[in-house]
Amino acid sequence: MVELQKVVSFCDRRTRRKDIRDFPPAHNGLQIENNGVVTKIGAAVDAGERPFQIAAEKGIDFLIVHHGLYWVPPVPLTGPAYRKTRTAIEKNLAVYGSHLPLDCHPEIGNNALLAKALDLTRLETFLPYEGNNIGLVTNAPASRDELKYRLERLFPGGVVAMEEGSERPQKIAILTGSGSSAVEHLAEIGVDTLITGELKQHFFNIAQEEKLNLFACGHYRTETFGVRALAEETAKYFDLPCEFVATDCPL
Amino acid sequence: MVELQKVVSFCDRRTRRKDIRDFPPAHNGLQIENNGVVTKIGAAVDAGERPFQIAAEKGIDFLIVHHGLYWVPPVPLTGPAYRKTRTAIEKNLAVYGSHLPLDCHPEIGNNALLAKALDLTRLETFLPYEGNNIGLVTNAPASRDELKYRLERLFPGGVVAMEEGSERPQKIAILTGSGSSAVEHLAEIGVDTLITGELKQHFFNIAQEEKLNLFACGHYRTETFGVRALAEETAKYFDLPCEFVATDCPL
Amino acid sequence: MVELQKVVSFCDRRTRRKDIRDFPPAHNGLQIENNGVVTKIGAAVDAGERPFQIAAEKGIDFLIVHHGLYWVPPVPLTGPAYRKTRTAIEKNLAVYGSHLPLDCHPEIGNNALLAKALDLTRLETFLPYEGNNIGLVTNAPASRDELKYRLERLFPGGVVAMEEGSERPQKIAILTGSGSSAVEHLAEIGVDTLITGELKQHFFNIAQEEKLNLFACGHYRTETFGVRALAEETAKYFDLPCEFVATDCPL
Amino acid sequence: MVELQKVVSFCDRRTRRKDIRDFPPAHNGLQIENNGVVTKIGAAVDAGERPFQIAAEKGIDFLIVHHGLYWVPPVPLTGPAYRKTRTAIEKNLAVYGSHLPLDCHPEIGNNALLAKALDLTRLETFLPYEGNNIGLVTNAPASRDELKYRLERLFPGGVVAMEEGSERPQKIAILTGSGSSAVEHLAEIGVDTLITGELKQHFFNIAQEEKLNLFACGHYRTETFGVRALAEETAKYFDLPCEFVATDCPL
Amino acid sequence: MVELQKVVSFCDRRTRRKDIRDFPPAHNGLQIENNGVVTKIGAAVDAGERPFQIAAEKGIDFLIVHHGLYWVPPVPLTGPAYRKTRTAIEKNLAVYGSHLPLDCHPEIGNNALLAKALDLTRLETFLPYEGNNIGLVTNAPASRDELKYRLERLFPGGVVAMEEGSERPQKIAILTGSGSSAVEHLAEIGVDTLITGELKQHFFNIAQEEKLNLFACGHYRTETFGVRALAEETAKYFDLPCEFVATDCPL
Amino acid sequence: MVELQKVVSFCDRRTRRKDIRDFPPAHNGLQIENNGVVTKIGAAVDAGERPFQIAAEKGIDFLIVHHGLYWVPPVPLTGPAYRKTRTAIEKNLAVYGSHLPLDCHPEIGNNALLAKALDLTRLETFLPYEGNNIGLVTNAPASRDELKYRLERLFPGGVVAMEEGSERPQKIAILTGSGSSAVEHLAEIGVDTLITGELKQHFFNIAQEEKLNLFACGHYRTETFGVRALAEETAKYFDLPCEFVATDCPL
Repeated sequence: MVELQKVVSFCDRRTRRKDIRDFPPAHNGLQIENNGVVTKIGAAVDAGERPFQIAAEKGIDFLIVHHGLYWVPPVPLTGPAYRKTRTAIEKNLAVYGSHLPLDCHPEIGNNALLAKALDLTRLETFLPYEGNNIGLVTNAPASRDELKYRLERLFPGGVVAMEEGSERPQKIAILTGSGSSAVEHLAEIGVDTLITGELKQHFFNIAQEEKLNLFACGHYRTETFGVRALAEETAKYFDLPCEFVATDCPL
Repeated sequence: MVELQKVVSFCDRRTRRKDIRDFPPAHNGLQIENNGVVTKIGAAVDAGERPFQIAAEKGIDFLIVHHGLYWVPPVPLTGPAYRKTRTAIEKNLAVYGSHLPLDCHPEIGNNALLAKALDLTRLETFLPYEGNNIGLVTNAPASRDELKYRLERLFPGGVVAMEEGSERPQKIAILTGSGSSAVEHLAEIGVDTLITGELKQHFFNIAQEEKLNLFACGHYRTETFGVRALAEETAKYFDLPCEFVATDCPL
Repeated sequence: MVELQKVVSFCDRRTRRKDIRDFPPAHNGLQIENNGVVTKIGAAVDAGERPFQIAAEKGIDFLIVHHGLYWVPPVPLTGPAYRKTRTAIEKNLAVYGSHLPLDCHPEIGNNALLAKALDLTRLETFLPYEGNNIGLVTNAPASRDELKYRLERLFPGGVVAMEEGSERPQKIAILTGSGSSAVEHLAEIGVDTLITGELKQHFFNIAQEEKLNLFACGHYRTETFGVRALAEETAKYFDLPCEFVATDCPL
Repeated sequence: MVELQKVVSFCDRRTRRKDIRDFPPAHNGLQIENNGVVTKIGAAVDAGERPFQIAAEKGIDFLIVHHGLYWVPPVPLTGPAYRKTRTAIEKNLAVYGSHLPLDCHPEIGNNALLAKALDLTRLETFLPYEGNNIGLVTNAPASRDELKYRLERLFPGGVVAMEEGSERPQKIAILTGSGSSAVEHLAEIGVDTLITGELKQHFFNIAQEEKLNLFACGHYRTETFGVRALAEETAKYFDLPCEFVATDCPL
Repeated sequence: MVELQKVVSFCDRRTRRKDIRDFPPAHNGLQIENNGVVTKIGAAVDAGERPFQIAAEKGIDFLIVHHGLYWVPPVPLTGPAYRKTRTAIEKNLAVYGSHLPLDCHPEIGNNALLAKALDLTRLETFLPYEGNNIGLVTNAPASRDELKYRLERLFPGGVVAMEEGSERPQKIAILTGSGSSAVEHLAEIGVDTLITGELKQHFFNIAQEEKLNLFACGHYRTETFGVRALAEETAKYFDLPCEFVATDCPL
Repeated sequence: MVELQKVVSFCDRRTRRKDIRDFPPAHNGLQIENNGVVTKIGAAVDAGERPFQIAAEKGIDFLIVHHGLYWVPPVPLTGPAYRKTRTAIEKNLAVYGSHLPLDCHPEIGNNALLAKALDLTRLETFLPYEGNNIGLVTNAPASRDELKYRLERLFPGGVVAMEEGSERPQKIAILTGSGSSAVEHLAEIGVDTLITGELKQHFFNIAQEEKLNLFACGHYRTETFGVRALAEETAKYFDLPCEFVATDCPL
């Protein structure tokens, strides 16, 4: 049993919460309090009604989420917003959100952990947002085919591959989640190959016109790494149990 | 015992909620659900922590408020915002907000009921906002002194009187709450005397320069009428008990 | 051989171009002139470099596109923007864009033709944008399973199905391309089932919370219908050859 | 008899006019010229018609004001704006405005002089605005009761006290005039007690929810200190007579 | 000797002041009061210091101007703004501004009177702004040469002629003052010839590219007609003397 | 025969393109590609249809312009925009735009070269825009008359002189093209005399009120210097022929 405030402080420090400016209206940090005590830690990609229910069933009372409550503000507290909030309050479930800090973190960020899972090595970062680079650049495997093979092994749910760039890329850019903001910045860093979660439709044409390799592996699937890592580290630090709350999100 | 949805529908209809556009970010209507059943109705000016506590203690499970939850958005749900929301959810307290609809309503609006309490008769309305007039114009008593006497009797907590206009005004403008938006429109309707709740400091000079009578009777005190009337009507309609939740707000 | 201006006028009239306001910066109508004469008509979803090349190879000199040139403005005319424009000008390829007019058209719009391909019957429209409804509501097949079966037959490339709503929906909403703007308006029209092209990731949670059936069939794939139909009608009217310019867009 | 330009330069330097950015549309510095010569200095809180008349009657030809002419721009020069401007021009009355510079000045600012009148000692400043802190933090008297006693003695016209914080505050925050912008920044500086001029109504609830002591002593009354001090210093420096132009502003 | 208010009302009615929305921050109507009595009427294009001085010397106490005081707001009242205002107030000079109402008026507007001076006949109007058309379309003389001849006779100070359109225009567009906003609307009304005051430099290229005749005759010179006509009509109506205040403005 | 990319790089470096932020939507640098090879360099003030035609006739395949293509965006490519673009593409004409960099350059900028042509010596710069001063201050000739004499000799097409300032100015400010943004900053640098291209009409009054000498010599005529100098330097560096494309722009 650990004080809520200590768990929050650990997560704030570990993710460097105050140093990373996020896209409005994201609100990183503690999003819902509980009774002040934490006994079990959980992680989920989304602050949705179902993840809250599953977390409550599992006895979790501190849930770390990547997409927090305030993208779609819970105003008014009626319907799903009421049920979601009531679940958290009645089940004593504290909710902690961490978005960009858990994308770009050099050790427990989604980009870094995805690179690691693909056996790629960090070279540099790119895509500055309010003072921090939110994208990662790594070395490349021997060939684009090898890269695709590793991606399909890691993401058996399917990889959308637009292979219009070089067959032997020298460097790989990684931006988990939505990759649309990254594409136009690839040329500046001399990279033609991007691994990401989802891309808007017109990027297919841009891939052809700019001769790029774009791999879209699923928004959800590329963003399970960070919350899970933070939850595990936090649980270990405080000697608490820990569990990941998976959903079958196909997007 | 009445279904929550029926009570909400009654209030929506009675206040013509859908027809009155409010100032953003006011959100009129049901703001927090409860378990779906109403047994006692309450009214309070503000959706504050203390009014919620008092309402819960009184067994109220449907609280009508004038200043709803979303002027200061409850984001994140920590500290007072958490306590306030937890009180509502744990005590099964539904909260219903009605702001402009309860200012300008011809029968149960703050303006109309304040006029009635002063024994003044409605003549017309003024101050259009998104299709509705939110201020009231009434006949005048015999003299400004008589008006001031009635105001001080109705508001023993104190009336700030700036008497720079005519001693025998022909018509009286009323805008409960903050009156700052009304002052510059008095000339258009041929009125030099305004009863309101609060005014910014520079209106003292404007009173002197434009030769106006401005009476500031307290924001809170001028806005207890509407919620109380709606609560009483609703309770009577559904044959439920009803109580007003007073605070000692001095502003 | 037909005058360019006559072909443009026909398309403008047939799509009611002047009556349909589009999202900025979409520019419907003639986007690139040619030498003033049309001999073969083509259709493509995107105004991309590859579609222009294929069209030129096929001898097309009037290409109707759904996603026109100005979503990503061709400024400056260097790199792909230069090559794309040079291809059009050197190959005498006129380009005609029609976006929302070809989504919402009751006969040759993407929504209507997709409904027809699914054997569904138009009931009403929804989702107003600047005076026109851009979404379609149809009757429903016997069951959600039957609907999914038809979708998978029509789109063998894959359908992302989020089946959280009713198993026997009464009505079906259709919005080709990006469906994100439609979801929050389904409740107003009493529909819980949407067929669309692509959806952002958080709509998975919304499907679960609001109990909706959302079918994402691919942005490109749901928008080949309109341009093809307009091209065929135009070609027939002027007795010209016609060809569709397909790409293997996986998004 | 002193040159106007010298008096203006003295005031500019003494208030560090160029270093303090004010809220738009405040315009600090000389607001109305006169014939170029100053013989008597005056001070008033507001650039109102009555203060101008009184100043002219007293033979003042250089009037320092806190709330200058351009909060309510004198456009067009008809009615009160014409009379006010004509009074100044015909009576040869130069008007000099100084707003934020006379709030936050460490010696002759409203905050500092109010602290001094209450026998409180400056500790630090808070509430940054465009590079300057505009609020003051002082030590505290022995108890909240003692503080309230001193306030009521200094402001016999009345003090609105919302006493929801600690009974023995350690530090006191001061922001003369409107205090609404200061309240949400009290926690950051570890202070729960604010002395100010006026507060909007909802701060009563915030006082209760955040457990704060808020003392509203009147906007006008808390802002007579700075202009008076600057006028007296300026008059002494140039060996000119000086007079304060009081009004009975109740706000 | 006539009451100021009567003169103002006459001008307001004659120019339909309340019905013509002007470009912000233009303020049409009375801009500076005087002692309430008018004995001599004047007209000037600009509310400048020199026109005010000349008007005062001529004994004018009601000056009608086209470009009023508030294009460059007189804030603060120091330097030229002070001298200008002091001149008006000390010399008892009321100032009345009328901008768009005196451009587009069918009888005493600058467009209409310029057309008349060129012996051209009104056909229709164009260039809608907030509900009123502010440009005029007239018949054409026999040839562009004839038009140019008449212009050079009327404006001996010089006419900048860009003759890239037809030699025998069928209709002529007129917009006095700045014509930049009119050029792109000429095609819609089937006109290729514009008479105006001034044009930005890039319109030379547009003239060549769009094959237009553009005649720039001077902003000042094309806008002396309206104020003079209104002043004369007003003076005649009230049986007062009247004088035009000319300057040698070369722009 | 030189590679296009080398010519572009030379111009970028010489004009310090990346260091000078321009007014949106100006786009400095290469605006239209060609086949990648340059054989003859040209210069023109405007990216107009006629300058493109003349350049093509002269065999120019790299045209430097001051007012580039994107002030009036070429969208859609129909009418003049199509013809202009087709001329460039079919005639293999690369277009390079350089606006502010060629106004403020200390050696080949319009300001500097105009000063040199008038035999004036650079003293300092003024008028900061996004980190660079875009105006020039020089010494003065013996008298204003001498200055005017030199201007009329340099610009025989006519100089609009508003001589309301000192007869013996000490310093001269220069801003080629539109000078409207410079006038209000003259006092700060202690200058009363401005040489520029064009001025809006109300600056005549400002000249009189602020006692300024304003010389408007024509927007086009004051901006032929920079493009010509850059073209000549570039041609010399690469040993290519060079030609200036003049138009008879009277503005």
